[in-house]
Amino acid sequence: VSGGRRGPIDFYFDFASPYGFLAAMQIEAVAERAGRRVAWRPFLLGAVDKAVGQSPLEHPLKRAYVIGVDVPRLAHAAGLAIKAPADFPSHAMPATRLFYWLDDRDAALAVRFAVAAYRAYWLDGCGTADATVAINVAASVGIVGAEADLALGQPAVKQRLVDENEKAIRRGVFGSPFMIVDGEPFWGGDRLTQVERRARETASVSELDRRE
Amino acid sequence: VSGGRRGPIDFYFDFASPYGFLAAMQIEAVAERAGRRVAWRPFLLGAVDKAVGQSPLEHPLKRAYVIGVDVPRLAHAAGLAIKAPADFPSHAMPATRLFYWLDDRDAALAVRFAVAAYRAYWLDGCGTADATVAINVAASVGIVGAEADLALGQPAVKQRLVDENEKAIRRGVFGSPFMIVDGEPFWGGDRLTQVERRARETASVSELDRRE
Repeated sequence: VSGGRRGPIDFYFDFASPYGFLAAMQIEAVAERAGRRVAWRPFLLGAVDKAVGQSPLEHPLKRAYVIGVDVPRLAHAAGLAIKAPADFPSHAMPATRLFYWLDDRDAALAVRFAVAAYRAYWLDGCGTADATVAINVAASVGIVGAEADLALGQPAVKQRLVDENEKAIRRGVFGSPFMIVDGEPFWGGDRLTQVERRARETASVSELDRRE
Repeated sequence: VSGGRRGPIDFYFDFASPYGFLAAMQIEAVAERAGRRVAWRPFLLGAVDKAVGQSPLEHPLKRAYVIGVDVPRLAHAAGLAIKAPADFPSHAMPATRLFYWLDDRDAALAVRFAVAAYRAYWLDGCGTADATVAINVAASVGIVGAEADLALGQPAVKQRLVDENEKAIRRGVFGSPFMIVDGEPFWGGDRLTQVERRARETASVSELDRRE
């Protein structure tokens, strides 16, 4: 943990989430300005919804607004041209599993993978549920395809993601993106200014105790 | 309509919505800076949810975050001390009916009523479903209590709200607050900066044609 006693910004996101994508393009700069590091924490929003009994029923008006209006408008303001994943809305199980598999070896590599995956899904429009896409993204950051392919099927890799999802639920995460700074939760990319302000503060000892 | 050819900012909100309340405290200033007026448009979010088949099932983690963390934090930043309505979450049928009843007589009076109602619900913690509260709020802006009480039960007043809800759905409104500027939709209080920027622009003729 860099920044002396100050913990990371926990950055929870679903690869299939457009708001997660937009936040992912900014979160490292936010953390750098605040003198913190980012702990990247992908999870499966669908699994969280199921666990807490939320209806997976999509709101038709909301989806049209989010994908047709709000996300393109925010992306435009950020200088990005969004192209939704071919299978949207779907899960992003393959990349999420591969992230934690890589994270156990090399955290910096896992972050490079996460950024590349997000760009493949939301700038190139690749399907989030497609294992081949995730394996190709891994190859783009130097991972041998056959190894990634094998990893996706390993019980330990599968279990790791189940555990991470459960941990996210225990921490109160219910949306993407979702940031936690010294125990304080922030939901949504429109809270990044608040996250940065909070992250600039020095954590109190009690908050550090609670978290660690 | 003030501001020459430029239409109003349509401001849709549910009196039972905390984000609607926070936006209501800012929307007139936003419009004034942009040289527009505000068309206040309360509606019943529950009726919209039902009409579009959204599950009314509340997400337990989300509710705790919204009411326990996010709304108080935003209110604090705005210099307001929130107190949730005693019956939250509930509908705000009485104030919404009274709003349109007043709006037909005197639009400025209806806006004063809306602001007073929002303050009663979200600063004083009065129940949104309680007809007596709505009648008392009406009295605070000069309406005789017995008249407001009678109005609440009139079929024409009831039908007016049904019609307004249907109109909101036809315009794609699905959340509170929800703003429409020259046909462009904005969902959420965190979009007020974008609303102001958009409202400063002069509407194109085609947009005005589409809207009117």
